Amino acid sequence: MTSSSSKPGEFELIARLFAPLATSRGAFGLTDDAAVVSPPRGHELVVTADALVAGVHFFADDPPELIARKALRVNLSDLAAKGAKPLFYLMTLALPHNVRYDWLKAFARGLAKDQREFGLSLLGGDTTATPGPLTISITAFGSVPKGRMLRRKGARPGDLVYVSGTIGDAGEGLALLRRKRTAPKKFIDRYRLPMPRLALGLALRGMASAALDVSDGLLADLGHIAEVSNVRIAVEAGRIPVSRGVDPVRAAVAGDDYEIAFTAHKPVALAGVTRIGRVERGRGVVLLDAAGEEIAVKRKGFAHF
Amino acid sequence: MTSSSSKPGEFELIARLFAPLATSRGAFGLTDDAAVVSPPRGHELVVTADALVAGVHFFADDPPELIARKALRVNLSDLAAKGAKPLFYLMTLALPHNVRYDWLKAFARGLAKDQREFGLSLLGGDTTATPGPLTISITAFGSVPKGRMLRRKGARPGDLVYVSGTIGDAGEGLALLRRKRTAPKKFIDRYRLPMPRLALGLALRGMASAALDVSDGLLADLGHIAEVSNVRIAVEAGRIPVSRGVDPVRAAVAGDDYEIAFTAHKPVALAGVTRIGRVERGRGVVLLDAAGEEIAVKRKGFAHF
Repeated sequence: MTSSSSKPGEFELIARLFAPLATSRGAFGLTDDAAVVSPPRGHELVVTADALVAGVHFFADDPPELIARKALRVNLSDLAAKGAKPLFYLMTLALPHNVRYDWLKAFARGLAKDQREFGLSLLGGDTTATPGPLTISITAFGSVPKGRMLRRKGARPGDLVYVSGTIGDAGEGLALLRRKRTAPKKFIDRYRLPMPRLALGLALRGMASAALDVSDGLLADLGHIAEVSNVRIAVEAGRIPVSRGVDPVRAAVAGDDYEIAFTAHKPVALAGVTRIGRVERGRGVVLLDAAGEEIAVKRKGFAHF
Repeated sequence: MTSSSSKPGEFELIARLFAPLATSRGAFGLTDDAAVVSPPRGHELVVTADALVAGVHFFADDPPELIARKALRVNLSDLAAKGAKPLFYLMTLALPHNVRYDWLKAFARGLAKDQREFGLSLLGGDTTATPGPLTISITAFGSVPKGRMLRRKGARPGDLVYVSGTIGDAGEGLALLRRKRTAPKKFIDRYRLPMPRLALGLALRGMASAALDVSDGLLADLGHIAEVSNVRIAVEAGRIPVSRGVDPVRAAVAGDDYEIAFTAHKPVALAGVTRIGRVERGRGVVLLDAAGEEIAVKRKGFAHF
């Protein structure tokens, strides 16, 4: 049914909007069906894909510039946590029939802004119509020296557990937006526009024993490390870095933080990084209070593949 | 809104269904946030992405195995037309709430079947819920010797124009399905399960001057070659290879064929390939009748990026 559902004029305009974003030689200015890519010498490519759906990962009436940048950044956050330097991305867009050209123009402007900020470019993609909500799927490419990707696997008993930035701000932002509140802006901004910790990711190469980005919730994500590394992770609630007014237990399960959580064999002294716990023998993740007692939390876990 | 909309149990099952498909070392058994990939020595990666939406590119009640295989094959068809050997793919799935485990199991079985048939494996991806239709986005990776990807650009006046297989069968199949007809099965099968011409694509390396796969319609796609190569392409309607009962003019604009259309500086003698026209100075695509007169067609053109 491809043919009859497309709107040629509109789709040509899209190509015109996106072609300027495809600045790498291998993208052929988006004039071909495919692109070519090679990792830099001595490196391999790190690839990751995330899909965002209007009404699920963002509000349909969020500013298009921010939607674009968030879609890109959730992928960049994965690259950051893997110690990769961003290179390229491909994007497929399923567009509802009521999407206007001005909306797309602002969306492309958002991509352009973040391409400049994070030093990557568009490699290709596909646009299609959908009777459903706007759906954005991005595959991002980064590079690491061969064999140096930071893994979820690698945490060992005795390791220390760290997290970057503050946790729970985006969760507060989401709660505010759901109540149609527009302040405090700080929290809403954190939800709408995550900041991929790319510099930190590069610094962690060879320093972190395991790492990932916090998207599903601090405890759920540390649970992924614990599971794959076959260890237990104990987090001290009182150590979780939170903004004023944010409850650390609530923050620990909020998600959308896009900070990096990692473990390290030796103590790490890096700006903007907080030690929050330790790796032990066993399984799973526990949250501890000041007395070292386990805090019961309704766990949230979301499998990725 | 990521967190609250997901169904953990279901998503873990998905991971279990898809992990067996991730057989390459760099996929880490889908236990990490990203995968690593490198082209074989002396090669570069060819990457392409296509999204398919239920109700747009397939019928929501099509057999899940066939939906999966079609989603993979439309991407493999792009690799084929670029002269690339398939290696890997990433997939993001936006799943409606009513998708059942049995459906997903059949979907994964379809992927497994085509992975074996075409020699590629799953590298990673993402699943999310959607209030809209099932949306599948695939990024496929292949390899070509460095600088040898077949391009849309490169057709020159004097070149001959070829196409593989038969054109228009899938279009007939779609028309039948829209009228709730289930026969002739041959046409319906062609619509539901395209056959990527991978062996032909490899044979065309260094032989074709320009190539692409026919997805938007033979004339529309040749129009892409004409535009980027800055030439005019003249197609003789009487030479278009069609199945018995299929009108060649209708076939030329039908789409969904997933055959390879290409140009060559010298005559090509390959099984299953038909010469349909020639490249001239000028612009655009024309369809000619037996007397060499232009046949007026309502052109269908769909831009990709």
